Amino acid sequence: MGSDEFQLIEWVRARTKSSELVGIGDDAAVCAFGSPQTVLATDLLLEGTHFTFPDVTPEQAGRKALAVNLSDLAAMAAIPKAALVSLALTRDRGFSFAKQVMTGLLELAEQFDVAIIGGDTNIWSGPLAINVAVAGIPGPRGPILRRGAKTGDQLFVTGPLGGSAAGKHVSFVPRVKEAHTLSQLVQIHAMIDLSDGLAADLRHILDASNKGCRLFGDQIPISSGAIFSRAGGSSLERALGDGEDFELLFAVSSKDAAVLSSQSKIPCYPIGEVIRDAATRIIVSKDQSDIPLPQLGWKHRFAD
Amino acid sequence: MGSDEFQLIEWVRARTKSSELVGIGDDAAVCAFGSPQTVLATDLLLEGTHFTFPDVTPEQAGRKALAVNLSDLAAMAAIPKAALVSLALTRDRGFSFAKQVMTGLLELAEQFDVAIIGGDTNIWSGPLAINVAVAGIPGPRGPILRRGAKTGDQLFVTGPLGGSAAGKHVSFVPRVKEAHTLSQLVQIHAMIDLSDGLAADLRHILDASNKGCRLFGDQIPISSGAIFSRAGGSSLERALGDGEDFELLFAVSSKDAAVLSSQSKIPCYPIGEVIRDAATRIIVSKDQSDIPLPQLGWKHRFAD
Repeated sequence: MGSDEFQLIEWVRARTKSSELVGIGDDAAVCAFGSPQTVLATDLLLEGTHFTFPDVTPEQAGRKALAVNLSDLAAMAAIPKAALVSLALTRDRGFSFAKQVMTGLLELAEQFDVAIIGGDTNIWSGPLAINVAVAGIPGPRGPILRRGAKTGDQLFVTGPLGGSAAGKHVSFVPRVKEAHTLSQLVQIHAMIDLSDGLAADLRHILDASNKGCRLFGDQIPISSGAIFSRAGGSSLERALGDGEDFELLFAVSSKDAAVLSSQSKIPCYPIGEVIRDAATRIIVSKDQSDIPLPQLGWKHRFAD
Repeated sequence: MGSDEFQLIEWVRARTKSSELVGIGDDAAVCAFGSPQTVLATDLLLEGTHFTFPDVTPEQAGRKALAVNLSDLAAMAAIPKAALVSLALTRDRGFSFAKQVMTGLLELAEQFDVAIIGGDTNIWSGPLAINVAVAGIPGPRGPILRRGAKTGDQLFVTGPLGGSAAGKHVSFVPRVKEAHTLSQLVQIHAMIDLSDGLAADLRHILDASNKGCRLFGDQIPISSGAIFSRAGGSSLERALGDGEDFELLFAVSSKDAAVLSSQSKIPCYPIGEVIRDAATRIIVSKDQSDIPLPQLGWKHRFAD
């Protein structure tokens, strides 16, 4: 099996000086210079990988490029403020296509009160590529990282999972406001946004926290898109493995889980609990026996 | 003639709320939240446009992606602190190629004490694309913008111009330290880094400052690359029109120009003066007659 993106990230991380900054490996980076701190994230969206025409409109592609970044900030419970937009536009599609892309992006920026403060515009013969970098500030409780999950914590997601490719991958609303509200109602120990699929992103939280978990398979909310998907596998496998849900996955204490159940106006689905044993990341099937969580989820891979 | 990148930038600017931030149109953006302020810039480098293999090595491509961003911060006399790196890697070139790209980038990051704090890694079948977003803080004199040139100011560049395509476009040292030193020695009124070519970038400063200028053609330093270029045109045209010099162009008062001439340890070449009349951006030829500055310099263009 070829090398993948995570091996490259590890390789880079090993060659990067530790500093006072939260570095590579969380949803966003926290710059310790400045007060308040600046929270930064970036994502590069590529035609053919993250969207395909005419399956999506140019407006949807532009909107998605900002939305995935806002989702990264939401995963830190940070408040987005500004964005830089880099474009590789396809020469033959012309100016009007470029304006459509930016219209979709600008509408979402206005909705979330994000200023477009700069960028870089290129025109080439290749496919459309859009990189967005967002800057924000931590919420009142500070940035929430992936690494704080504790034994006994309850795991929640903010919405039904799977089947995003049918449309949600471009229409989702980044959970910025939900993260803000939830982080003020309870103390969130660890959080991530679901971009690679629940199974993969859950591992990111557990690895960072040096914990394991027991998932309750029959409690995982499954989207109608996953239930009616024509892709192979069960709908539960879709919910575990499909990428680009862009819901939040987070861990809170049992006490705060009760607060969420009784008081939260934000949809929160309990899906499992954090356990001490990092080796057994398991899923409970309907008959209550534990099976290892299958290796599901999206990775970029090299050919070699 | 087709539309170009600057028309798109203007179109976006008109649709972006003004805010307390320095927005689209300078070398970098200054985020007014936080103290010190955060200075942000981004550039997207594309295989086939900004570099071609095997003309450059993978290490040079990676280095350039960070270097052009550091040059943007240098143009504000800002101090770089951190960078986010987004990669679209070509699947068939594999892991070792990706590591070469990042090796070139990481070496320059270490040289300038820049922490790589995050990014996004994609692997696709398309050409190599590298987006870097950098964050820094203003220098002791605050961020230097394009728009502060005053009538009577003297214009300087920090090095010989033109012919960068022969090699300097990947080997240049971003003028971060030079900008820092110069901005403490004198009061720089306006500054830009030369990426699109002197003629084009000079217009950016003059337009932003609502001024014109008189260039002294025989004082413009011309690189050996431009003198020995096999591309068409005179060597002066190369120096005026070639992109990617990544030297600094800046304006200071006549008094400070004298300080530079007598005290600066940083190479500074006087090339002209700022005049009140915005309409006459002119060049003095050897016989002292004024001619309009030709329309030279690089623009990304659409096909339509």
